[in-house]
Amino acid sequence: MNIGIIGLGLIGGSIGLDLFTHRQQTQTQIHPPLSYRILGISRKQQTCEVALKRGVVDAASVDLSLMGEADIIFICTPIAAIAPTIAELIPYLQPHTILTDVGSVKKPIVETCSQLWPNFVGGHPMAGNTETGIDAAQHHLFINKPYVITPTEHTPPESIKIVESIVNLLQAKIYHCQPEEHDRAVAWISHLPVIISGSLIAALRLEDNPDVDLLAHYFASSGFRDTSRVGGGNPELGLMMAKYNREALLRSLKSYKQTLDQITNYIEQEDWQTLDKQLNQNHCDRLKFHF
Amino acid sequence: MNIGIIGLGLIGGSIGLDLFTHRQQTQTQIHPPLSYRILGISRKQQTCEVALKRGVVDAASVDLSLMGEADIIFICTPIAAIAPTIAELIPYLQPHTILTDVGSVKKPIVETCSQLWPNFVGGHPMAGNTETGIDAAQHHLFINKPYVITPTEHTPPESIKIVESIVNLLQAKIYHCQPEEHDRAVAWISHLPVIISGSLIAALRLEDNPDVDLLAHYFASSGFRDTSRVGGGNPELGLMMAKYNREALLRSLKSYKQTLDQITNYIEQEDWQTLDKQLNQNHCDRLKFHF
Repeated sequence: MNIGIIGLGLIGGSIGLDLFTHRQQTQTQIHPPLSYRILGISRKQQTCEVALKRGVVDAASVDLSLMGEADIIFICTPIAAIAPTIAELIPYLQPHTILTDVGSVKKPIVETCSQLWPNFVGGHPMAGNTETGIDAAQHHLFINKPYVITPTEHTPPESIKIVESIVNLLQAKIYHCQPEEHDRAVAWISHLPVIISGSLIAALRLEDNPDVDLLAHYFASSGFRDTSRVGGGNPELGLMMAKYNREALLRSLKSYKQTLDQITNYIEQEDWQTLDKQLNQNHCDRLKFHF
Repeated sequence: MNIGIIGLGLIGGSIGLDLFTHRQQTQTQIHPPLSYRILGISRKQQTCEVALKRGVVDAASVDLSLMGEADIIFICTPIAAIAPTIAELIPYLQPHTILTDVGSVKKPIVETCSQLWPNFVGGHPMAGNTETGIDAAQHHLFINKPYVITPTEHTPPESIKIVESIVNLLQAKIYHCQPEEHDRAVAWISHLPVIISGSLIAALRLEDNPDVDLLAHYFASSGFRDTSRVGGGNPELGLMMAKYNREALLRSLKSYKQTLDQITNYIEQEDWQTLDKQLNQNHCDRLKFHF
């Protein structure tokens, strides 16, 4: 089997590294060797060279025609490039080739890409860090991390199985759900936090007393640091999630504002008993998360 | 000089530990020994015993009359107990005794306490962790941490100097500001984060699709963990800051909601250019904090 990877950055590069190493390890054992080749595509020749040198891929090219040999292709480009890449890719593909992506939003991607290529399986490995590029690629990035697969009723079951068999080699935890459910869940735990955290930083710009602003900067400690962290992160990623998960994000924002208004109301009305109950409930609810 | 500490918990205990150790160290050097005694008050006899054993105080009692010997007293009780403690303390105090507190809100405390005892200096050491009680007391808790002193125009300058001379032994960074400025600054960096972070946890309770709720719990990672941390913290502390810093907190909340509405509007209107600008500004603004 030939496995293609388009986009050799943190995610694509780390997938390649693990698949490459896994094959090497099984070859030295008594198990029959796993027979697959890893073919990589990058826009930059230099990235192709680094990928070959680091043991990410067996062959690499800046030319999409290399994907003509692939049986399954992981599209690991930024979200905005996924559908255009598929459109460009189609002339080279074999009829049986499976396409899968790693985008952090699923509904719009799955809708568009399944129309372009019906043998498409939506995917989202929920791993990563703030680094980007082939140099940031690392082994074991996906171990015990969620890898969400979002098939529709039209997704070929055999293709889902093949994607899963490869994801299993990464030792990720596989979850299945509908694209829309995925998007709503990540809006809650990933995209809404970016907006409410960023709004904290932005709101401080409205402070009209320069002494208070200065003191806030002097006094800020772990509480402000942690609450503002994701809001001060990569602006490009923040913009992408707002663009591509707009509907689910606005849905979470609506509930969030309703909650914030309610809590503000308790403070305004000095309803300390109800506020106390809310704060206790928040404390208990957070313990249900296993970070 | 006799230094009193009322409330031998994390803050009071840690002040005692550092003053006790500092005196011991100077006694072994060629410098003339610092001559002060440390007198502690706790509501519990057992805490008094632990404080004596751990080297927090030279003498300890559950009886406020011990403070009759004190020249300066650090009131390290929870906020709600500060003014009642002073009222109870007054019959035992010498006329020259300085009172200072460590409460995390200053305007209401300084107003009330200065009326009860004009020789009062408002203070707020901005150090601590989630632990409480004498067992949590530790050496060097205040090193390089802000210690805010909030005198008014009526605070005796000599008393401010004496408080500062003791705070210097803790190696904290001293800041001076008005009580109201302090409260507005901590509303921004400490109290507002608790409310917006807690509202994130609370808003998720409005999710009406149990599958989405379950997925959100499975998928939550470092972004949600950090943004929700202070909101899921000690409910008692959250309630106290809302009660005692209500005015400044509502002021920050107003700006926050205005900002959140504006950012929501950019997303609704698909004004990606302005959103991009905001996210970039947030990224840059956060770099100005030195955590």
